[in-house]
Amino acid sequence: MKIALDAMGSEEAPLPEIRGAIEALKREPELSIVLLGIREALEPFKKNIDSNNRLEFMEVSQVVKMDEAPSDVLKTKTSSSMAKGMQLLKEGAVDGFVSAGNTGAVMAFSLFLLGRIKGVQRPALATLFPTPYGQTAVLDVGVNVEPKPLHLKNYAVMGNVMMQGIFHINNPRVGLLNVGHEEGKGTQMIQEAYNLIKNTNLNFIGNMEGTDIFKNKADVIITDGFTGNVMLKAVEGMGAVVLSMMRDMGKKYRFRGWVSKKVFKDFLVGLNYEKSGGGILLGVQGPVIISHGHSTARAIKNAVRLAAFAAREKVVEALKEEFSE
Amino acid sequence: MKIALDAMGSEEAPLPEIRGAIEALKREPELSIVLLGIREALEPFKKNIDSNNRLEFMEVSQVVKMDEAPSDVLKTKTSSSMAKGMQLLKEGAVDGFVSAGNTGAVMAFSLFLLGRIKGVQRPALATLFPTPYGQTAVLDVGVNVEPKPLHLKNYAVMGNVMMQGIFHINNPRVGLLNVGHEEGKGTQMIQEAYNLIKNTNLNFIGNMEGTDIFKNKADVIITDGFTGNVMLKAVEGMGAVVLSMMRDMGKKYRFRGWVSKKVFKDFLVGLNYEKSGGGILLGVQGPVIISHGHSTARAIKNAVRLAAFAAREKVVEALKEEFSE
Repeated sequence: MKIALDAMGSEEAPLPEIRGAIEALKREPELSIVLLGIREALEPFKKNIDSNNRLEFMEVSQVVKMDEAPSDVLKTKTSSSMAKGMQLLKEGAVDGFVSAGNTGAVMAFSLFLLGRIKGVQRPALATLFPTPYGQTAVLDVGVNVEPKPLHLKNYAVMGNVMMQGIFHINNPRVGLLNVGHEEGKGTQMIQEAYNLIKNTNLNFIGNMEGTDIFKNKADVIITDGFTGNVMLKAVEGMGAVVLSMMRDMGKKYRFRGWVSKKVFKDFLVGLNYEKSGGGILLGVQGPVIISHGHSTARAIKNAVRLAAFAAREKVVEALKEEFSE
Repeated sequence: MKIALDAMGSEEAPLPEIRGAIEALKREPELSIVLLGIREALEPFKKNIDSNNRLEFMEVSQVVKMDEAPSDVLKTKTSSSMAKGMQLLKEGAVDGFVSAGNTGAVMAFSLFLLGRIKGVQRPALATLFPTPYGQTAVLDVGVNVEPKPLHLKNYAVMGNVMMQGIFHINNPRVGLLNVGHEEGKGTQMIQEAYNLIKNTNLNFIGNMEGTDIFKNKADVIITDGFTGNVMLKAVEGMGAVVLSMMRDMGKKYRFRGWVSKKVFKDFLVGLNYEKSGGGILLGVQGPVIISHGHSTARAIKNAVRLAAFAAREKVVEALKEEFSE
């Protein structure tokens, strides 16, 4: 199992990527990683890393920046770590690709180099959302901010395949994020999506409100990329506030160290995005993981492991089969 | 100061309303309340309540249900607690109206009986969002799920007036909720709203991401009613999870009672929707507060106090003045 990792993606690149890669290799004995970056970024680390041949460095000459337009980078950044990593995946030299860089650019290179799975109108970014009851898939969380109803039907089918394929959940419950539970709520687009999803053979539980996300009502939550992105980041922002309040209170009330640590660990497992590592880009012809711009080494480690997991569980193959029917 | 309170609004009505009214009267010596409800609901409480003439019961013959269409109730529910309470406000018999009932119906009666403030195209529901740094206004959180760009400009102006008028914040910072910070991000509607707000003389700080909500970047956060509603409820749902985790951990690690209590109090102040009580319907000709369907007595108490506060601070008058210019 070999994963390509864009070493130039995150805001603090390449440090979280290099540390994350080393951590991932420690945890996965069967894994090897290709780190793609420019010479200046990789050189200082090369000599200090004992990689047992499982960590390979690949030099590239360009970096995609966060504020570059996806349509531009397709033409101007063909020698970037992002383009080259995606190319390795296309050629079958690696089994998955991970980047914490510009989401739109990763999406553009995925579509241009790998292509869509036949039958999928629009890919979606799916995040595994930690709840007290287990993992819930939320899609789309940001690659398509203005989807059509048919796209949301695609997302429902893809989310169903993913939760069945990766997490072996039998007949996953699919919910549609909305402003109320009753049929007929929401925008015109959401109402049409509701009717399309209702007419599939999925286990559709209907509309869900924001509060329901944490109530173990669904295994797959469908939303447009705008709402999904804002909601996910709001919850993350709140998680950060909660952690910092906990920390302050720990000091204030002099919790003993082990209690405080245990409390933090419980919270981190429940609330922190680092745990999931990133989102899976569903609907393109290869396992692509898009991580947060402000990913830590821990987030990158988990993103790489998620890519390996998705490749091992053959999510792309399962999607191809589903949409070929 | 007199506030009309719909006693038939919440899911557990009339109990939270009656208890909330009593609590509000205890806290506000200058306040009186008119409780509107059907006889069967109010009768059991009448004899047990010592109201010092500050709590008045008004019998009505109808109740608006949660799933009724707003367009229908305007015709069929003219003798409901909601219609009668709004009528009292229109006639000047009370200074504000509070309901935890059907949001669409409250909006419909507000528009039909009170009318819009001249110059406001669409009213918005504004919630005061607790952050570790103070109150932030978020609007719209659900009365208009498919607004036009001009409506969002209205919201920005109204949010500015409210934070200046109620909270005496000088030159409030106004942010637009979006999927990224850069100009040009988001849907067509959001991009157009961005340009409209940018060309006002408001203190516009540009786009905000979901994570920024808790970072004290803005005093007023502008969003469409769909995104605002989902985001707000997701954060509330998470707050509930956090509280329940805290409670479990308190038991598990045998926190001493006072620590646990202090911790809860700190959290509740920071995270719980009960604190704000409800949203202010901005843009109609009178102070109308819409509370959660699952309001507790504490939430109702704070909603009534918010109505009194909005009336005292003359928010409606300030909005009229702003839009008349």
